[in-house]
Amino acid sequence: MRAVFFVSDSTGITAETLGSALLANFPGARFERHTIPFLGSVTSVDAVVARLRRSATDGDAPIVFATVKDAGIRRRLADAGAVVIDLLAGHLTELEAELGATAETRAGQYHGLGDLEQYFRRMRAVEFAIEHDDGQSGRDLASADVIIVAPSRCGKTPTTMYLALHYGLLVANYPLTDDDFPTDGLPRIVAPHADRCFGLTTTALRLSQVRHERRPQSTYASLAQCTLEIRRAEDLYRRTRIPFLSSATRSVEEMSAVILQSMNLRDRPRERPTP
Amino acid sequence: MRAVFFVSDSTGITAETLGSALLANFPGARFERHTIPFLGSVTSVDAVVARLRRSATDGDAPIVFATVKDAGIRRRLADAGAVVIDLLAGHLTELEAELGATAETRAGQYHGLGDLEQYFRRMRAVEFAIEHDDGQSGRDLASADVIIVAPSRCGKTPTTMYLALHYGLLVANYPLTDDDFPTDGLPRIVAPHADRCFGLTTTALRLSQVRHERRPQSTYASLAQCTLEIRRAEDLYRRTRIPFLSSATRSVEEMSAVILQSMNLRDRPRERPTP
Repeated sequence: MRAVFFVSDSTGITAETLGSALLANFPGARFERHTIPFLGSVTSVDAVVARLRRSATDGDAPIVFATVKDAGIRRRLADAGAVVIDLLAGHLTELEAELGATAETRAGQYHGLGDLEQYFRRMRAVEFAIEHDDGQSGRDLASADVIIVAPSRCGKTPTTMYLALHYGLLVANYPLTDDDFPTDGLPRIVAPHADRCFGLTTTALRLSQVRHERRPQSTYASLAQCTLEIRRAEDLYRRTRIPFLSSATRSVEEMSAVILQSMNLRDRPRERPTP
Repeated sequence: MRAVFFVSDSTGITAETLGSALLANFPGARFERHTIPFLGSVTSVDAVVARLRRSATDGDAPIVFATVKDAGIRRRLADAGAVVIDLLAGHLTELEAELGATAETRAGQYHGLGDLEQYFRRMRAVEFAIEHDDGQSGRDLASADVIIVAPSRCGKTPTTMYLALHYGLLVANYPLTDDDFPTDGLPRIVAPHADRCFGLTTTALRLSQVRHERRPQSTYASLAQCTLEIRRAEDLYRRTRIPFLSSATRSVEEMSAVILQSMNLRDRPRERPTP
């Protein structure tokens, strides 16, 4: 087990996300992971240096994925015997050369009025998503940027929340149930907004696994029922010409990226993902 | 306006997140941003190369933040006259040298059974968060990893969703209202779980701004009311010795990172943030 530290002078989210993505390319290796946020403010540099030294003497040098702006602190991590992979500072130097400007490495980029507007947008989006989860409300559906439709347990709710939280989009989701068939169209409440609908599907096997987790041995979770519902849903998507996507082998992040792309929501003014 | 492209063979989330964090260090410059996900699969490399060439002839070379594993594709982007800042491949080379192994640059790291378990966890967490938003349910509160308490509009809901979605934690949140005062303790329903409570506060001015957005010119949004509620809430946190944090100058990500750290939830087995 190789010790890996995600070390940051801020939240550690970027270090953890990019570092994990990099490590995933080495499926043969095993890693013991630690995240250390707020280095230099909440977390003492001395304590981390001591921890790296202990870890280094146990065998292989620990690997540190660092998003730390202070060059002095980065040097101290390297001097502690760690392999420091610098995710930030090298790229800042590239950018400085290209932009002909010096990076202002101030802490905290989230203050000020611009953020207050973003914050309102994000809060409103999350509240809209909660209110409109699983077809609970038809109120103000005309304001929705996207309405995700799918049979139960195809991944509507996490995808909705991801889009709301990260992009400040107003996202509703609506379940396709047996009651919606055998009619030919979309459920009555969402039909007027078909241009903003996006369908999810999955494989019958995967849906059955997911449903067994919720209600083991039920008809609801049976392979026959899942096969039927998936077939009906996909027929409906094709007939009503709404775009759709299988969640079977995709993460919530991947589904969100496809939906943004497919519905042309990328180039609208919106909140960017924040580090 | 300098053209900036976040280009990825996957979702583009890492390129967009890290690229935006890097650009934030140059507040004097203005950027026109474009995100191009799924390069080489959904998105044609030829089309992107042509777009970069057009953008390059308009003036300054476009800046490309790339998470693209294929070296041939990266070369084509650079040949199109773009400044390519490679966020991934250089670090993979560093890791290969350190681990003495070759990176397996396969697409899609989210398949398989491990992901199904993560998926269940994440889905359950988001559903728990929706069910327990704003004190709506006291059911199964004993299972909560964290219970966020705060006056209305201090940022409980987005922080709850972030922790649920990204870390698969079971997070409830509970509002502190006038009804909860002048008693000396936490609200009756959450009091038995004080060890898992975390308080949010903010400045009276900020709270008043946020509340005016929801109910302009109300008593609820008045500076006097906000001052009173903030003071009472902070007194309560101190008296009951629950950790707390101000959301006034912090992003949802920063608040989540502090809560994880403060409640020792980082080193529990959990879902890592995914790229």
